[in-house]
Amino acid sequence: MNGAEALIRTLIASEVDTCFANPGTSEMHFVSALDRVPGMRCVLGLAETIVTGCADGYARMAGKPAATLLHCGPGFANGIANLHNARRAFTPMVNVVGDHATFHRPYDAPLTADTEGLARAVSNWVRTSGSVVQVANDGAAAVQAARSAPGQIATLILPADTAWSEGAEPAPALAVPARGPVAPETLATVARVLRSREPAILVLSGQALSEAGLRAAQRVAYASGAALRASTQVGHMARGRGRAPVDRIPYPVDVAVKALAGLRHVVLVGAKPPTGFFGYPDKPSLLAPPDAAMHVLARPEQDAVAALEWLAEELGAPQSVPMEPAGPAPELVSGRFSPEGFAKVMGVLLPEHCIVAEDGVTSGRALFPPTMSAAPHDWLQVTGGAIGHAFPCATGAAIACPDRKVVCFQADGAGMYSLQALWTQAREKLDVVNVVFANRTYRILHGELLAVGARPGRVSNDLFDLSRPDLDWVKLSEGMGVEATRVDTLEAFADVFRSASAQRGPRLIEFRID
Amino acid sequence: MNGAEALIRTLIASEVDTCFANPGTSEMHFVSALDRVPGMRCVLGLAETIVTGCADGYARMAGKPAATLLHCGPGFANGIANLHNARRAFTPMVNVVGDHATFHRPYDAPLTADTEGLARAVSNWVRTSGSVVQVANDGAAAVQAARSAPGQIATLILPADTAWSEGAEPAPALAVPARGPVAPETLATVARVLRSREPAILVLSGQALSEAGLRAAQRVAYASGAALRASTQVGHMARGRGRAPVDRIPYPVDVAVKALAGLRHVVLVGAKPPTGFFGYPDKPSLLAPPDAAMHVLARPEQDAVAALEWLAEELGAPQSVPMEPAGPAPELVSGRFSPEGFAKVMGVLLPEHCIVAEDGVTSGRALFPPTMSAAPHDWLQVTGGAIGHAFPCATGAAIACPDRKVVCFQADGAGMYSLQALWTQAREKLDVVNVVFANRTYRILHGELLAVGARPGRVSNDLFDLSRPDLDWVKLSEGMGVEATRVDTLEAFADVFRSASAQRGPRLIEFRID
Repeated sequence: MNGAEALIRTLIASEVDTCFANPGTSEMHFVSALDRVPGMRCVLGLAETIVTGCADGYARMAGKPAATLLHCGPGFANGIANLHNARRAFTPMVNVVGDHATFHRPYDAPLTADTEGLARAVSNWVRTSGSVVQVANDGAAAVQAARSAPGQIATLILPADTAWSEGAEPAPALAVPARGPVAPETLATVARVLRSREPAILVLSGQALSEAGLRAAQRVAYASGAALRASTQVGHMARGRGRAPVDRIPYPVDVAVKALAGLRHVVLVGAKPPTGFFGYPDKPSLLAPPDAAMHVLARPEQDAVAALEWLAEELGAPQSVPMEPAGPAPELVSGRFSPEGFAKVMGVLLPEHCIVAEDGVTSGRALFPPTMSAAPHDWLQVTGGAIGHAFPCATGAAIACPDRKVVCFQADGAGMYSLQALWTQAREKLDVVNVVFANRTYRILHGELLAVGARPGRVSNDLFDLSRPDLDWVKLSEGMGVEATRVDTLEAFADVFRSASAQRGPRLIEFRID
Repeated sequence: MNGAEALIRTLIASEVDTCFANPGTSEMHFVSALDRVPGMRCVLGLAETIVTGCADGYARMAGKPAATLLHCGPGFANGIANLHNARRAFTPMVNVVGDHATFHRPYDAPLTADTEGLARAVSNWVRTSGSVVQVANDGAAAVQAARSAPGQIATLILPADTAWSEGAEPAPALAVPARGPVAPETLATVARVLRSREPAILVLSGQALSEAGLRAAQRVAYASGAALRASTQVGHMARGRGRAPVDRIPYPVDVAVKALAGLRHVVLVGAKPPTGFFGYPDKPSLLAPPDAAMHVLARPEQDAVAALEWLAEELGAPQSVPMEPAGPAPELVSGRFSPEGFAKVMGVLLPEHCIVAEDGVTSGRALFPPTMSAAPHDWLQVTGGAIGHAFPCATGAAIACPDRKVVCFQADGAGMYSLQALWTQAREKLDVVNVVFANRTYRILHGELLAVGARPGRVSNDLFDLSRPDLDWVKLSEGMGVEATRVDTLEAFADVFRSASAQRGPRLIEFRID
């Protein structure tokens, strides 16, 4: 059999059975092999940023990697922004990048590019398959790399002749090492710190934000008095009633510094030291007090859940601790959009066991507190700051979990990076309600300009303004086959959202914000 | 003054006075300085592939670089595909990429990426500005690099503190070296080859496709009997009545090999040896006969026009040679779309002195011959194979040449990579008629699959098919503020195109193809 077929059989044997694709000529043998080999679900994205964003959302929910199929260097480059987000979320992913046949490469044909250099900039593992007898083993190694804790981006570059030549055999799946345990000395140190009752916080990320991780973290907090916070960006977090009501570290530097003031100990559980999203003149990069001690309980690739459970036992925490009140029960409010009002409405309306994909930028920042007591749900957030993530992330999550409603919160400026994902939702009849925050401006930049002490002028107003003309999201959505409605009050939104939630299939709601 | 202001003043002093931008937080001081410094026209693109594609189209027509303003690594990455096209067209461009403040970088904040690695993969010149006292000189060096023949991609990475710190001064423009002359021995060799009257072809690219280059090339061909061809992809070519009717080397390998069969000499004038776009099993990479001698008359950075003019004199060509007949005069035809029928219609309808931006893929391949006798026009083509180029290229060309009509030929599958450019056309009220070839499939891939000896199956049909649902380009265009019309016959197209050409401002015509 040829290399392409052996690679596909290898991926399937390694339990990679979903492929998000935007193929080109150099991938034709791979595509042709997909026609012959059953067992791989293929989903078309109309641009590579959709393909990689879908694969990110899929893997965050499926707990295993999807494959992507991408075309040469420039095609791969189009997918880098969402690979960057995926890398920051520790999402496992296997990219198969078709490239020129080895004998054609020296001629520097128009599509020839530094594919390997581009791949290295954003992948944890990169290999260019050297010959047809290696390609299956390379594929198995790519899946192994992707699945290694905490989850990695593996990119396999496949020269066309490696795909089309005969003489390959599928390779068996390679073993994936289990998450490493936290060393006993580390556990003992953190236990001693927490027993001191000095002001302490546990900063949670990755596995610590799973249902089991949060349950154990809450027991630790109960027994020790330590505070709990999620990192500012959460890749995948279990939320809603019955889950620990943990807020994120705030995004604005000043607010975050205030939130962490007075702490003596910062315990990192799969998280990095709290850091500002950007550096600013005369503001700190690190958000915790300079004299606070930093303790790494678990690195991202270590077993954070086991470490938290050990700590809970060691501190004598009860098996089940009373849930902190998550503030007043959410209630529907009416009137014009405000981030806080909208968040309250969503606290009431989020469907049971839905998946939320969020890239709401300024409009989405207030969403966390009022949705702590919403119905149980999973939260997937843009993690790397590359905007336009929610549309494709929601799309991939819906492929992974066809029986769950997906709610997508997408800011309008960011959404213009990836609106093509709506077409994939229509094509695959995915159960996604897309909410676009149409404030018709890069509002975050207005704030950032003021933060640097400047006043907006002619040029900056032009560069931040998304009106003149207004984007019409109803037409854009319908143009890609997704039914859409425009609302401009919270009560109208609630009506439309309820009706969209009661049906299956993709919908879009443009929330027009003044 | 701060580094940002010094950099902007330096760019303007170096005659870079147009900036295509999609800024983020790390560019706020640059944006704020744009508010204070007059003389830089800023144009917003709603995704970075639009920004870089616009800068490409602008520079091809303006003959000088635009600046781009891009945000950190992932933002730059979003622009790589059209930087790749620009690099292949030898387009001069100065990218300013904001990045984290130097003191913030070690903390690996979410947007931290290998910006320099990404930039190197697609730029001829890369520098990360190290301090505020260097930034203006770095800017002047970037413009110098961009303007050095044959035109280069220069990327200047600007850490935020380099932009906001005080103590900078603008730098004067640096001298740009003139194009190097072709060596006398080379000229003599090629003259001897052409005098032999053995079958020879001149392959033209870059400067050789300018009006002066084509005039000289035609004199050489007249005096020597050599054939003339443009490279398969042309960055910028003068065409239409009064210009030499030179066809491109065909795209399909078999057709190209046939077209070049029997040649003994291939003379490269700013062009590379004719090479297949892709490598295929059992097909050659090089398209000319293996025993043909390859002669480099001018490298891309050399003065090809002077070399051609010297040759014409040396060969005793008359100053003005009779124009070869360009085939029968084009005439309007009617009925359903065919590439040939559409090309004839455009041979009649192309407006006088218009600019054509073309990324028509299969629907656009027949456009060249019948438009040789159209009204004089300039042709800008996707050069690097990264699709979705025509929408932003047309947009940038219209900024460069506000008094000329721009006609954009965009295939639908490719157009979904960059439809956001339509909004910039609406915002800037640009005089562009966009024609979308809506065949609702990646038709080229159907052909490529057959070419590898496979038959389309369930998966490949799914991955090549852009229907289910059909994209509605009228709604997509109107959603971005550009008036749009759908046609499905050549006669209806001609009517709508004539009316669109008679007005100013952006329009879109969806040509629905069965």
